[in-house]
Amino acid sequence: MASASTGSRVSCGRDLNCVPEIADTLAAVAKLGFDFLCMPLFHPRFRREYELEPAKSRPGAQTRSDLLLCGRDWNTLIVGKLSPWIDADSEIETERRNSEAALTQELNFSAYLGLPVFMIPLKGPSNANLARVLLNHIHTGHHTSNFWIRVPLMASEDMREDLIENEPISCTDDTSIDEKTWSWWNSFRTLCDYNKRISVEIGPDMPSDTVIDKWLGEPIKAAILPTSIFLTNKKGFPVLSKAHQRVIFRLFKLEAQFIFTGTSRHTDKDFRSYLQYLEYLNQNRPAPNAYELFAKGYEDYLQSPLQPLMDNLESQTYEVFEKDPIKYSQYQQAVYKCLLDRVPEEQKDTNVQVLMVLGAGRGPLVNASLRAARQADRRLRVYAVEKNPNAVVTLENWRFEEWGDQVTVVSCDMREWAAPEKADIIVSELLGSFGDNELSPECLDGAQHFLKDDGVSIPCSYTSYLAPLSSSKLYNEVRGCRERDKDPESHFETPYVVRLHNFHQLADPKPCFTFTHPSTDMNNNRYQCLRFTVGCNSVLHGFAGYFETTLYKDVTLSKSADPFFLWPIVFFIHQDDDVTVRFWRCNNGKKVWYEWAVTEPSCSAIHNPLLLDVWRDTPATVNHFTANTTLLPVY
Amino acid sequence: MASASTGSRVSCGRDLNCVPEIADTLAAVAKLGFDFLCMPLFHPRFRREYELEPAKSRPGAQTRSDLLLCGRDWNTLIVGKLSPWIDADSEIETERRNSEAALTQELNFSAYLGLPVFMIPLKGPSNANLARVLLNHIHTGHHTSNFWIRVPLMASEDMREDLIENEPISCTDDTSIDEKTWSWWNSFRTLCDYNKRISVEIGPDMPSDTVIDKWLGEPIKAAILPTSIFLTNKKGFPVLSKAHQRVIFRLFKLEAQFIFTGTSRHTDKDFRSYLQYLEYLNQNRPAPNAYELFAKGYEDYLQSPLQPLMDNLESQTYEVFEKDPIKYSQYQQAVYKCLLDRVPEEQKDTNVQVLMVLGAGRGPLVNASLRAARQADRRLRVYAVEKNPNAVVTLENWRFEEWGDQVTVVSCDMREWAAPEKADIIVSELLGSFGDNELSPECLDGAQHFLKDDGVSIPCSYTSYLAPLSSSKLYNEVRGCRERDKDPESHFETPYVVRLHNFHQLADPKPCFTFTHPSTDMNNNRYQCLRFTVGCNSVLHGFAGYFETTLYKDVTLSKSADPFFLWPIVFFIHQDDDVTVRFWRCNNGKKVWYEWAVTEPSCSAIHNPLLLDVWRDTPATVNHFTANTTLLPVY
Repeated sequence: MASASTGSRVSCGRDLNCVPEIADTLAAVAKLGFDFLCMPLFHPRFRREYELEPAKSRPGAQTRSDLLLCGRDWNTLIVGKLSPWIDADSEIETERRNSEAALTQELNFSAYLGLPVFMIPLKGPSNANLARVLLNHIHTGHHTSNFWIRVPLMASEDMREDLIENEPISCTDDTSIDEKTWSWWNSFRTLCDYNKRISVEIGPDMPSDTVIDKWLGEPIKAAILPTSIFLTNKKGFPVLSKAHQRVIFRLFKLEAQFIFTGTSRHTDKDFRSYLQYLEYLNQNRPAPNAYELFAKGYEDYLQSPLQPLMDNLESQTYEVFEKDPIKYSQYQQAVYKCLLDRVPEEQKDTNVQVLMVLGAGRGPLVNASLRAARQADRRLRVYAVEKNPNAVVTLENWRFEEWGDQVTVVSCDMREWAAPEKADIIVSELLGSFGDNELSPECLDGAQHFLKDDGVSIPCSYTSYLAPLSSSKLYNEVRGCRERDKDPESHFETPYVVRLHNFHQLADPKPCFTFTHPSTDMNNNRYQCLRFTVGCNSVLHGFAGYFETTLYKDVTLSKSADPFFLWPIVFFIHQDDDVTVRFWRCNNGKKVWYEWAVTEPSCSAIHNPLLLDVWRDTPATVNHFTANTTLLPVY
Repeated sequence: MASASTGSRVSCGRDLNCVPEIADTLAAVAKLGFDFLCMPLFHPRFRREYELEPAKSRPGAQTRSDLLLCGRDWNTLIVGKLSPWIDADSEIETERRNSEAALTQELNFSAYLGLPVFMIPLKGPSNANLARVLLNHIHTGHHTSNFWIRVPLMASEDMREDLIENEPISCTDDTSIDEKTWSWWNSFRTLCDYNKRISVEIGPDMPSDTVIDKWLGEPIKAAILPTSIFLTNKKGFPVLSKAHQRVIFRLFKLEAQFIFTGTSRHTDKDFRSYLQYLEYLNQNRPAPNAYELFAKGYEDYLQSPLQPLMDNLESQTYEVFEKDPIKYSQYQQAVYKCLLDRVPEEQKDTNVQVLMVLGAGRGPLVNASLRAARQADRRLRVYAVEKNPNAVVTLENWRFEEWGDQVTVVSCDMREWAAPEKADIIVSELLGSFGDNELSPECLDGAQHFLKDDGVSIPCSYTSYLAPLSSSKLYNEVRGCRERDKDPESHFETPYVVRLHNFHQLADPKPCFTFTHPSTDMNNNRYQCLRFTVGCNSVLHGFAGYFETTLYKDVTLSKSADPFFLWPIVFFIHQDDDVTVRFWRCNNGKKVWYEWAVTEPSCSAIHNPLLLDVWRDTPATVNHFTANTTLLPVY
């Protein structure tokens, strides 16, 4: 059961500090079941002194020949490790210059071999020169290898290579110590301008949960597992503590790779038993919930918000939404309760309620309403209004096969429909991931004239929510959205639909905009100021957007009950610490759009102002998303 | 044997004109072994008359419900076919307008279903309005389906849907008839601006080989196989004529898919026997030669030419070149003959020839030279000069393990090396895909001062060749190379290294530039005017570049003998018919570059002139390829 829900196996590597014979070692490590081997490229004791004779002009090969492995093995199975003595940020100039030369040589040789990954340790807070040399190497070469920056989860007093294998330290509340190494990493990747080829590899120590949370917003590619952290179970096999297991389960979700370091501490067992235990954990990880299963493969994948008013949805989009296991039963419940409230028992055969489904799609709300009527033993006359002529084909087929004359299919935009009678109940599902962003307020306002004075709208209200977040992964994804022929910053001024995964939410969500239906106030502009206390040293990369809706009385849909609808929209801005953000919903009679700005701790520019409109109205971009066009034309 | 060399199976579809029950039909077709089903989306006899009552407002569903298949089946297994009665280019206005409306409806419904492919037939020379409606549909939607334009290989006098299944017509030399349908397609894809989502699906008729050649420059995605073209073998199974087999073998190379149409003509056999015969042909297709095997997966893939003088090559690049089965034995043969010429038998123990390998890489020319010396029973003192410090590691290891004191490894640029003595023989492999484009002339001129007056250069000469070609596939690939921050036309003014595959060579190659070594003339600028007689109506998309070299006397490397080195460079320009092209090799003391222009039948602009230099010298682009930087700095 568990294995069916988790799928692929964990990728594991073996870390060695000395590899006298490379081909045999690689074969042995592969035979144990490892996927790759981490090893130094140059002899660990061979400190090259570039500036001093005789070392400077020493003859002979600097390291072993690339011919010892075929190119394919170098390209896929070997992770190189920087020589541990190299300190490019040494304050002693000769040591720094010598380290720079050795660092450059090792980076170049790694690129020459075509290694998939090269590992570089951070050993203290000062890494600016290391960052410069690395970035320069990345920008000047045509090679494609990646870099794993090895950062311990906790700084030891005396940080040395051999101390990485320390016993786990018990949790502590002293976050100033805990967060130290995170700030090493934060400075380093900021110096490297969030380069996508640089990711982090975390050490095995155990800081507080708060710090672990924080790391989970980082691009963690690998984690070190020293054999020394393993305990021994009754049968003599290696196992991990519950605390370590919890961290590992979280790393599984980020698809981290694991690197085993140290010699076997369970010498009567095969080294394979460490790997087998990790695979056992993988197969028995907590089962994903329906939301996670549904989003599988789309984690942190940025999508432009749907614009169903402008674009006709595709069949498969409807199919996905219809699979929601909770939403339509909630709608059924809402219609059921509404019918019981509106039609007394004694009128159940005479009172035919007029129910209009506005945006009927392929018919799920029609079916939910018909089920509700049967459940309540009340009579309905249904109008299924849908503007997408392709979905109307499905509705007409439903009507022919199942519904019969009880349902009238109307192929029309609800805002233009001349309804033949007024409705008792209008039912719609026009909400986007941020609630009102697919223009539900404007659409329902436009349909309100054919709702009876005492008529009911299902849903009757909805509220969007915002929470600040940190995620260098998502920040980088947004940077990658830059498009030719667009304002070079416009990709930072547009919201995205995304299944948030590799992120750290910095505070609880707060309500933003609320809309109710029917309404006497047709002004759907809004302005909201939200203040969040973050209370920890971090980087704000944007806001997660959620929404909740009340369908009817106590029947609601919220983030936890209806995850399919709630992929947040992320707004990217850059700030630290406590945050005040201001959001506007604007409308110029033709378009609706959002603007936003951070005003505390200092002011950002107002994002997505209307002046960016200049990019939008030219024919070449009319169907692409630029800043404001993620928001929809109001007819 | 054959199956090992060919690999994957052929993808086949079943074409039906009437599908009363879609799920059962799909299951039956899948059971027969087909990969997809081609079928009309709307009932073939249901002509919608949009502008006339009562058809205009006829109630009910226009076609069957999408709910009959799951979204995944629609997305992967169904190819839609346009209703055959639609004629968007009709000269009768009501028919044209009605056809436009039906065409738009079918395109939209195909997008709604998320079909992978929608098939549209060309039935005559006039398709401009069809092209406009289709292009508009592609540009305004967010859908991603592709379009196969169905074109018969030959036009019948009375081109009707049912005539596609005609018996094959014997070959004819009347190209004006043969080429008629190619020009239908050529006009259509030109109107559609070579849109990448539009490709061609060819009919089953058999025109002349010349016309088939021409089609092989087009993006052929599928070919129709009517059951009527199959013959019957002795055992009663369907087989194809030799002529059809030849065409099918060529289509295999383009990885076309095949669509079977018509009812079974071999009713005592399972329909599967048609599929099995095609798979039999696939498994027994002519084995690819070494060149094709080596290039597998890189067909028509554009690469920037290597710049080994500026960038250090990677280990795997050397590994690939070293796998060449012919080159190094030719070099060995050249050194062998040269040693015999220079050292008489009686001096074989006293005369030690000084041989310098210039650009030794990982040592293959050193090994070839040492083998040649053993073969000739002559004595050598070898210098292996290499500027890439990473490859020097390999050379030093060779020296330590194998070569010993006979070889001196020199870690140095040959143009800066202070040689301790003069050479009898210099051996190099500095040629690029166009011969001199990796600056072999400049490098060898720079090394000539340490060659004895009677010394020999291997190679002693090389010549580049050019031939005009047509390939809409490659033209589109080049269009896709446009880069942000570059001159918007620069990607048309840079040469590419590419394994030409989906192309049509319009004339035999002609020699362009020749260089010899050693030389008293150090001026390596060149100017050449070449005139090609194309003699058929086509589209020129550029020139294929080749080269040949003489290593020593009669020992040569040419296109057919040394295919690894000869991926042509393509220069893209746009012209028709007979062609005169002028090529310049230029040098301003800092850089070397090529310029070119077509002057007949009319003048193009001169491509890649130095003024484009403005794009190059800014730091941001110094390591990217812009127009002239594909050519190398001369120190």
